[in-house]
Amino acid sequence: MTYDCSFLSDLDIAGDVSFGESARETHAADFGADELGLGVTPDAVVWVESTPDVSAVLAAANDRRVPVTPYAAGTGLEGNAVPAHRGISLDLSRMNSVLDVRADDFQIDVEPGVLGAEVDEAVASEGLFFPPLPSSGDISTVGGMVANDASGMQTVKYGEVADWVLELEAVLADGSVITAGSKAAKTSSGYNLADLLVGSEGTLAVVTRITLRLAGRPEQIRGGRALFPSLDAATQAVFDAVRSGVDVAKIELLDEATARLANAYTGTDLPDAPTVFLEFHANHGVEEEIEFCRAVFDDHDAERFEVAEEDEMDTLWQARKDLSFALQTWDPDLSPMHPGDVTVPISDYPEVVHYVKDLADEHDLLVPCFGHAGDGNVHYSVLVDESDDEQVAAAEELYAAVVERVIEMGGTATGEHGIGLGKREFLEAEHGAATVETMRRLKRALDPRDTLNPGKIFPETMDGERVQADSETE
Amino acid sequence: MTYDCSFLSDLDIAGDVSFGESARETHAADFGADELGLGVTPDAVVWVESTPDVSAVLAAANDRRVPVTPYAAGTGLEGNAVPAHRGISLDLSRMNSVLDVRADDFQIDVEPGVLGAEVDEAVASEGLFFPPLPSSGDISTVGGMVANDASGMQTVKYGEVADWVLELEAVLADGSVITAGSKAAKTSSGYNLADLLVGSEGTLAVVTRITLRLAGRPEQIRGGRALFPSLDAATQAVFDAVRSGVDVAKIELLDEATARLANAYTGTDLPDAPTVFLEFHANHGVEEEIEFCRAVFDDHDAERFEVAEEDEMDTLWQARKDLSFALQTWDPDLSPMHPGDVTVPISDYPEVVHYVKDLADEHDLLVPCFGHAGDGNVHYSVLVDESDDEQVAAAEELYAAVVERVIEMGGTATGEHGIGLGKREFLEAEHGAATVETMRRLKRALDPRDTLNPGKIFPETMDGERVQADSETE
Repeated sequence: MTYDCSFLSDLDIAGDVSFGESARETHAADFGADELGLGVTPDAVVWVESTPDVSAVLAAANDRRVPVTPYAAGTGLEGNAVPAHRGISLDLSRMNSVLDVRADDFQIDVEPGVLGAEVDEAVASEGLFFPPLPSSGDISTVGGMVANDASGMQTVKYGEVADWVLELEAVLADGSVITAGSKAAKTSSGYNLADLLVGSEGTLAVVTRITLRLAGRPEQIRGGRALFPSLDAATQAVFDAVRSGVDVAKIELLDEATARLANAYTGTDLPDAPTVFLEFHANHGVEEEIEFCRAVFDDHDAERFEVAEEDEMDTLWQARKDLSFALQTWDPDLSPMHPGDVTVPISDYPEVVHYVKDLADEHDLLVPCFGHAGDGNVHYSVLVDESDDEQVAAAEELYAAVVERVIEMGGTATGEHGIGLGKREFLEAEHGAATVETMRRLKRALDPRDTLNPGKIFPETMDGERVQADSETE
Repeated sequence: MTYDCSFLSDLDIAGDVSFGESARETHAADFGADELGLGVTPDAVVWVESTPDVSAVLAAANDRRVPVTPYAAGTGLEGNAVPAHRGISLDLSRMNSVLDVRADDFQIDVEPGVLGAEVDEAVASEGLFFPPLPSSGDISTVGGMVANDASGMQTVKYGEVADWVLELEAVLADGSVITAGSKAAKTSSGYNLADLLVGSEGTLAVVTRITLRLAGRPEQIRGGRALFPSLDAATQAVFDAVRSGVDVAKIELLDEATARLANAYTGTDLPDAPTVFLEFHANHGVEEEIEFCRAVFDDHDAERFEVAEEDEMDTLWQARKDLSFALQTWDPDLSPMHPGDVTVPISDYPEVVHYVKDLADEHDLLVPCFGHAGDGNVHYSVLVDESDDEQVAAAEELYAAVVERVIEMGGTATGEHGIGLGKREFLEAEHGAATVETMRRLKRALDPRDTLNPGKIFPETMDGERVQADSETE
């Protein structure tokens, strides 16, 4: 259905409102929804500029039962920012100021529209950095990272975004403004609202200010790369390195198919072999740590284990860096489906990668497999000819089979990209009915009219009425 | 009021029930409530032995609107386990099994009554340890640590308990059983219920199984100690070490008064000077890190900077280890009041310690000051003659003034011991009315009859009716 959003023009806000088709169309999808064909055009777009703007829009929309879906860079992979029930797309990209850097406390305050890379830029001169920055950090916003509890290559050493959020200012559906968390390094004062909001994908509140914790930049940074004779050897080497306590800051796997694509795109002459990319951070003894890793990798027949100083690392890592472009441009007739991830306990990591490749062989599909290996994280993008219904069906079957296998292993359907629209069908399989109902109770408690980002996370039908709005008892 | 708990005898549970006075009296208080005189005797005690036991007791009590307060070791410092509204004390200490150790995944599954130290014992042979273990780990349970989001000396390097909880099984007030979190190293699947339950002090659910993440034991462990000519020099040295990125695993302050007590108790002949205790963990280069710390401390006129190998560390650290006994036995006429903590951003740490000492001088009170300095954490126990009303009043005034100053600084009223009964009056000052109301909404959503640990965290009057039960709309 369509919502009458003309009330937006009467609000006393600093930001702009548009009902124009082109503004609405550019807010219909994110990266994932584009690939999945799940875009939905909102009825209006509001570019908010302040917390009072957000509060005014939410209070008015909530009064009128109009859905509001937060939007910023639109780089999500599971349709997280798609206005699934239409209504208002609340664009936070103009709230993009670094508000304060408190280097002595290893803290920065930012608005949600600040890009991840801008955090690193703002604090580099203080010798600090933001460790969980995702690979998309150049184009994705801190608000989006908080909404999805993102993580990145350095998560294996430093943890995910949730671990680096200290305090959040957020606006609830009714327009009230709260402050969750604390600027102290630790707190046990009341409920941990900050960690509840992180990863809630804008369904519980709209985050308007974020205090991040930062880390001191290590004295020694080295990059590394090793090739393996088989994918099993590579995944076992990763597991063995983690189990042995090798202190890696990044440990990334590219399977043979991904390496082939990346080599072709980058123009490198590496063999098309399973490759593990590494980075080491230390203040002392980085060479000893690298030798420890080399010894572990040697047990798994690693070849061409190369290491570079920080300033030469880019060359060594080029194939990994170019990956997303390589995937998209490999073959004009093939599109990557389901770009999200799954994550398993590390001891199951070799098995799950093997399982993906077995299914790919069985279905005769090209399934490049890569990811933040040290976390047990797997990205598997099935490349399909979208005009071939049989291939698309086989790809969907493979995709679902892997998620289901991961859940059986005690893993998660989504390690770092949220549930959005794309993973809703797996929520209950992963958590069980009682746990999902508990999540729903929290949703109803904070957003009884289902104003905020309706249709996400919970597996109601996207085209139907908003389920939670129906169940409201006022 | 008193609740009729005779229904407990009719439940089909494996555990025992007692209505006897001695059982009830031993469940009236925890460490903090003992000191604060806040104990309340429950109407019955149930020793549960399994998740179905917990579920049966909660479902039956919830039906009858009888309060249930979880209890285990009773080592809390803020009255967290006091059955403030009487009803049932739910004793989890018999649920004390280590269920599974998955060393390859750095994971352990335990029941809530397992002691913290037992986790370390269970995984030591695998080269693993549980980093956020609090100082009370020998006598406090994992369930209690989860309930309060505890932390310990190693939190400065490794984080708090919440950072090491992967998955929780928990029973809601209505008896339903949920599983929060994931065994994957990271997840962004649905709401982060695990981190919401951690630190909720048994007011939202009763945790019945905990999957903890573990760390690999470092190759090099060294202990250190340094004396300082003044308290300001010591606190500035701590701040400077943290700001400079010295990689410490523990950094503990004892002020002159605490050092005097501890020296007297331990029989050491150290000068009664502000003392910083240190521990360093590394796989390589621990000596370089110690020298870096020494250089930073030298800038603040550190004296007698001594370092010991792991097997001699106990001697060096003896005064710190004996601290709680030293405080309690210093003077039979003086009792330590308000044993909890406050925590501030690290740049405010020197100022807050100075503020405590100024207030102590002003009121002519003995206020030993110590804590996990690297986190900005301060424990300040006012030693008072409880028969001296004027002194008690001055102590209360000092205590409250410090918490209020900490909140002004952006710190927290309680870094690691929860709100319990002792810190309720500061909840709204710290978080603001809208945020506290948001916490109440979550409480009502998960426990609409206020069955679980009523009277805690939220600042209703302890002797009054259960506020949230009254507001229930069914």
